[in-house]
Amino acid sequence: MPQSQEPDRYAGDPVFELHRGGKMAVVSTVELDGPDALSMAYTPGVARVCEAIAAEPALVDDYTWVSHTVAIVTDGTAVLGLGDIGPAAAMPVMEGKAVLFKQFGGVDAVPICLDTQDTDEIVETVARLAPSFGGINLEDISAPRCFEIEQRLKELLDIPVFHDDQHGTAVVALAALENALRITGREPAGTRVVISGAGAAGVAVTRILLAAGVTDVAVTDRRGVLHSGRGDLTPVKASLARDTADLTGRTGQLADVMDGADVYIGVSGGTVPEEVVALMAGRSDFPNQINNVLAFPGIFRGAFDVRATAITEGMKLAAATALAELVGDELSEAYVIPSPFDPRVASAVSAAVADAARGDGVARA
Amino acid sequence: MPQSQEPDRYAGDPVFELHRGGKMAVVSTVELDGPDALSMAYTPGVARVCEAIAAEPALVDDYTWVSHTVAIVTDGTAVLGLGDIGPAAAMPVMEGKAVLFKQFGGVDAVPICLDTQDTDEIVETVARLAPSFGGINLEDISAPRCFEIEQRLKELLDIPVFHDDQHGTAVVALAALENALRITGREPAGTRVVISGAGAAGVAVTRILLAAGVTDVAVTDRRGVLHSGRGDLTPVKASLARDTADLTGRTGQLADVMDGADVYIGVSGGTVPEEVVALMAGRSDFPNQINNVLAFPGIFRGAFDVRATAITEGMKLAAATALAELVGDELSEAYVIPSPFDPRVASAVSAAVADAARGDGVARA
Repeated sequence: MPQSQEPDRYAGDPVFELHRGGKMAVVSTVELDGPDALSMAYTPGVARVCEAIAAEPALVDDYTWVSHTVAIVTDGTAVLGLGDIGPAAAMPVMEGKAVLFKQFGGVDAVPICLDTQDTDEIVETVARLAPSFGGINLEDISAPRCFEIEQRLKELLDIPVFHDDQHGTAVVALAALENALRITGREPAGTRVVISGAGAAGVAVTRILLAAGVTDVAVTDRRGVLHSGRGDLTPVKASLARDTADLTGRTGQLADVMDGADVYIGVSGGTVPEEVVALMAGRSDFPNQINNVLAFPGIFRGAFDVRATAITEGMKLAAATALAELVGDELSEAYVIPSPFDPRVASAVSAAVADAARGDGVARA
Repeated sequence: MPQSQEPDRYAGDPVFELHRGGKMAVVSTVELDGPDALSMAYTPGVARVCEAIAAEPALVDDYTWVSHTVAIVTDGTAVLGLGDIGPAAAMPVMEGKAVLFKQFGGVDAVPICLDTQDTDEIVETVARLAPSFGGINLEDISAPRCFEIEQRLKELLDIPVFHDDQHGTAVVALAALENALRITGREPAGTRVVISGAGAAGVAVTRILLAAGVTDVAVTDRRGVLHSGRGDLTPVKASLARDTADLTGRTGQLADVMDGADVYIGVSGGTVPEEVVALMAGRSDFPNQINNVLAFPGIFRGAFDVRATAITEGMKLAAATALAELVGDELSEAYVIPSPFDPRVASAVSAAVADAARGDGVARA
């Protein structure tokens, strides 16, 4: 394909060379080697498959790619630590996500980068294209809009809707915490947790810790601990305050609640300057890295395997426990969470998620 | 993947077996064999690519899959001869189309089946997801909405928008007609053409024949010849009447204009009962079959090769001429149009389309 006629200042840069032409492609899974095959895969043969689905809509799961394909939907407002860079600039991240979905979960994924940041428009757009997909992975949509968008889409659609920045992060964080508590001989109840950041990840991590039995959580944003005495809380933060610091009476700034805390979970964009984060190297090599890729491929794989109509809290908790249990007897301070390249990860997560889907009554197969 | 628990009445049917699980998949084009590769294709490396595109938006063409990927968009209202069967039942056709795009044009294509039939909603939905794609192939959207939807999207977007039922059909019909006229020693001017059907295909075939120099065209719908003396014409049909039968004074019914006509082009859904069409076998084996697959893969390939901002009338005419010229000295009554499996087709069409795009000033590379 002809390239831009301007000199390419990125030519020769290994990261850019790897990205040239994109990171993904569509392939046919059927052989079209002549007129007979064409008559089956396309007209006139295909008409019979269309008629069968029109008469019995559930057959779309058997005879199209819909039931194993997820849309990765973003509006480009909260991409990595880069913030609002728009839909086109978000595409390399979405393609990367699609590649990870396929490699680690065998899930086909299509990036959909939207040219709107309006909550209503995002909801209605995703609802309209939903018949094309078996699930919706919301990605890099800024808080607090991401909460309403996910909630409304979950109500509108009968397929899994999952905001990975929230729930993927939460699942992996909980898995690591479960093993960290094992090492230190603690129980969820009685452990004092501080979570810095009340955005998408902070809210979801808090919620999953509460669901897992942690009782003493203090969440902080830029202005300090979330508690109902503050007059500046959004509805989402106010709800979080009632279920966290209000129960223990904690107030003040981050330093106040860090005093004596057992666990610190940093999920804020602001505390560490972006420039400093950008200077870091080899983050995928760090031990105990909390990488969402441990969760989302197996979660969707498990949901798709049983044709789940939703991803429930129980399915997320099951995913976290499955991840934590993979570490097994090798548990140590340097190894509380498996590597993304551990080949057991996706199948362990998907099996646990599928079981939980059956238990929660959301499995259709 | 587990299948539906109900007995599958289609099991063993070769067409359904070929469709099981769908006909397409997404694959990675990069190797993710360890943490280093992950750090380049995903975080943190990918952030530099995102920042580069945010600073210089045209780079999205170089470093993502957008510039070689087309969305196949339908609302399921005019699928094959089946009519309004809805978005889910339309999916097998859209997947077939995607497979043909890849096999014959090397174009990556993603089916988007929309859960709305409202013109405004379709236009705004496609416009919102447009940053994800290098082109929009509209498919199986019923007339007359398809005309307005295509026109408005062409005005809104700076990427190719192409309603294949209209223009793919028109290109292949014109190619066949050019060679049929060569065999019979006729010129476009002076040839009497009757077109039965004033839907998507009929309108576009008429327009391309007029652009190719045919001067005597009569178009018929269910009520007879389109002419300005009729009071029941839609705006699209009224416009067509002014450029066809009004110029020759022809009126009446199909039989009236067939009397003495040189060419008959049947693109109506109604004349031949659907049941009879459905009884036909081996249509892909007929000589001189007017199959859109001769056109759309090469047209988008050529447009993408030069990063065209639109598909112009000139590009369509060039595609038709390239198709007609491929037949060359072997021209005969049984061979006026190449076979879709002729390996020269896509490259001949794409080269002609790319040249025409440059000539028309819509090429960006």
